[in-house]
Amino acid sequence: MVVPRRTSRDIRSDSRLDVLHAVLSAGETTRNELAQFTGLSAATVVTVVGELLAEGIIEERKVTAGRIGRPTATLGMNKARGLVVGIDVAETYVRAVMFDAALNQILAVESARDEHVLDPDSVVEGIGRTLDRLLDEAGVSREAVLGVGVALPGLIQGPQGVSVVVPHWTWQTVELEHLRERLGLPLVIENPLKSIAIAELWLGRGRNCSSLATINLGTGVGAGIVLGGRILRGATNTAGEWGHTLLVLDGRRCRCGRNGCVEAYIGAPGIQQTLREIDPTHPLVDLDMQNDFIVALAAVADGDEPDEAVAETIARTAYYLGSALADLVAVVNPEVVTLTGWTTWALGEHLLPPTRRHLLEQSPGGSALGVELDVSTVLGNSVATGVATVVLERFLVDAGLLTSNIPVAL
Amino acid sequence: MVVPRRTSRDIRSDSRLDVLHAVLSAGETTRNELAQFTGLSAATVVTVVGELLAEGIIEERKVTAGRIGRPTATLGMNKARGLVVGIDVAETYVRAVMFDAALNQILAVESARDEHVLDPDSVVEGIGRTLDRLLDEAGVSREAVLGVGVALPGLIQGPQGVSVVVPHWTWQTVELEHLRERLGLPLVIENPLKSIAIAELWLGRGRNCSSLATINLGTGVGAGIVLGGRILRGATNTAGEWGHTLLVLDGRRCRCGRNGCVEAYIGAPGIQQTLREIDPTHPLVDLDMQNDFIVALAAVADGDEPDEAVAETIARTAYYLGSALADLVAVVNPEVVTLTGWTTWALGEHLLPPTRRHLLEQSPGGSALGVELDVSTVLGNSVATGVATVVLERFLVDAGLLTSNIPVAL
Repeated sequence: MVVPRRTSRDIRSDSRLDVLHAVLSAGETTRNELAQFTGLSAATVVTVVGELLAEGIIEERKVTAGRIGRPTATLGMNKARGLVVGIDVAETYVRAVMFDAALNQILAVESARDEHVLDPDSVVEGIGRTLDRLLDEAGVSREAVLGVGVALPGLIQGPQGVSVVVPHWTWQTVELEHLRERLGLPLVIENPLKSIAIAELWLGRGRNCSSLATINLGTGVGAGIVLGGRILRGATNTAGEWGHTLLVLDGRRCRCGRNGCVEAYIGAPGIQQTLREIDPTHPLVDLDMQNDFIVALAAVADGDEPDEAVAETIARTAYYLGSALADLVAVVNPEVVTLTGWTTWALGEHLLPPTRRHLLEQSPGGSALGVELDVSTVLGNSVATGVATVVLERFLVDAGLLTSNIPVAL
Repeated sequence: MVVPRRTSRDIRSDSRLDVLHAVLSAGETTRNELAQFTGLSAATVVTVVGELLAEGIIEERKVTAGRIGRPTATLGMNKARGLVVGIDVAETYVRAVMFDAALNQILAVESARDEHVLDPDSVVEGIGRTLDRLLDEAGVSREAVLGVGVALPGLIQGPQGVSVVVPHWTWQTVELEHLRERLGLPLVIENPLKSIAIAELWLGRGRNCSSLATINLGTGVGAGIVLGGRILRGATNTAGEWGHTLLVLDGRRCRCGRNGCVEAYIGAPGIQQTLREIDPTHPLVDLDMQNDFIVALAAVADGDEPDEAVAETIARTAYYLGSALADLVAVVNPEVVTLTGWTTWALGEHLLPPTRRHLLEQSPGGSALGVELDVSTVLGNSVATGVATVVLERFLVDAGLLTSNIPVAL
């Protein structure tokens, strides 16, 4: 049998993860509340809390003497345990974000990337320099950092090891070791779609549902999928590439090489293409930078002057998005769908109501009736947040507390 | 936390299921082989085998005295434990299949259904009469049958109970109890897509991979998905409705009400529509019965006379199928994809090579490179086989040996 066997060790690992999620979620809590929230027995909670205290992951804050019985201690994440860094390597930028061990954001720095420079050495150096700047600006030495997580597009695990595949990149494991050397810190690598799913699972809607899809809208689009409280990775770690499923067979050319992909319609360049098709002379059609275009589109939509071409662009984008989400709901049937990514931060409120309507109308057999569609509550760069969470997870795996699989830890 | 907690009871259940799968798979085996095949300890295998022997699910066949050590007993499924019946209720027929307790097919009978008669009473009576005929032809009384499973299209579980939703049907739980009364046997209800996945999991490729999608090609099309060795059900039991994902936005009208669904292109009527588009005067365009059309199409393709319209119809169908499978691989990324259903039995060998090529070309980042695409080895009606397997599973749940969730057991 190839199916990984679940053992009693995995059950203990699950209990620890549940307690940790609950502490993160509550901010400050007690052992009694943890037992109620997680459904674990009081005895298990006492054991698990003891283990997490011993590793310094959580801390006892204040002890209140009750009128009856023993005094009660409040528990919270131990922010001082160390720092973690998450780095989102996108097509047009590298963004490094520093968090404390309670996953509160401390500082973020961003470097622009030339999307035409794709050789591994330049990419490694770009990531390295962004990390150096982050540590420098924070006035922090490498010793204070527990580890760094890097989200790389198109991370694939196969029998020949790990490859990073984006349209023009193909890295092999060797280069990942170069990256480890350049960064000089314990390193985990994660796919950005898995990263956003991890962020949503730990810090967003994943706290109180068992299945969800979180949709990243930016240059590229994709889905992070959680089923049964776990990240869906797939056989080669490529699950969630919903951005490269068909919206229109033989439709618009997608940069992945396929025609008619969802991304070619609702990725930022796709949205600009929609405006171009509606009104080729519209001034926003000529904006060169994707992010500027999306921000300008939102500004026009928010403004007092009606702009029919912009309104129609948003309406069509919502139709494309709602139709493509109906496909995802048809196949995976999650409880919750959240939207994230920089297009969402700019356009989310405009897109949400019509997208909800299209999703509902197009999902088979009323299967979307119970689906909650919302903007993610994990604000900021959820790719960086997610991959920083993996750093914390890896720290707990190394301490023997968790059995989770982390795809690449160097 | 809404995530169902896995307990040590689930782990014991998993061990029993693994042993049972291994016995089914091997036909005849020994405790030593079972330990090797399942990866369970020898002690666990001895315990589990004892439990399955005590319930009469498996039997000891012959005992061979070895030259050294204790004699070895061979083990197999106990065919005489009782009969199980699986019933596939499709749009155009009701097919009831009788199996022994080792899931060997004994007898099948089929009744045509008028697809325009959709009131629940007629459907219940049609199922009842088909079961009566099966028992009658087999010369078997209800006492010899452990239970019956009925696969109903569009089974949805929601907070208001269970509904059976096909384009024009909406049943509530009440009518399912009528069905239970009419059949006069312990009854389980399953969705056909979940049924084909269960058949593939127990009797097909699921024996040696942990993730797969099995594709049903008939009047309707859909996918049964297995992840981590378990059926993907989704929040409302509708996961796998891949037949109602988009191939072409605003494309051909689908009978589900949406436009451009995969089913509208590769369901049997969709394939006939493709031929009609290529050559409206082709004699096969006028064939009235879907099954006759598919069989005739295969006969022409197999024949000596070249028929360009038929060849082009098959080529386009493979293009549609390969493209839609690439979408499924992009989102779910399974190890294995198998094809089943009556269109597959007729056309599978023609469709397979070009479909493989399209799947490979269109899957993002080479994610389909390792995917095996084949015709299912679960021959015959895998919907009926799958739902019969659920009957056996329910029997083991009732005996306290398994903790699996069966959606509807009356």
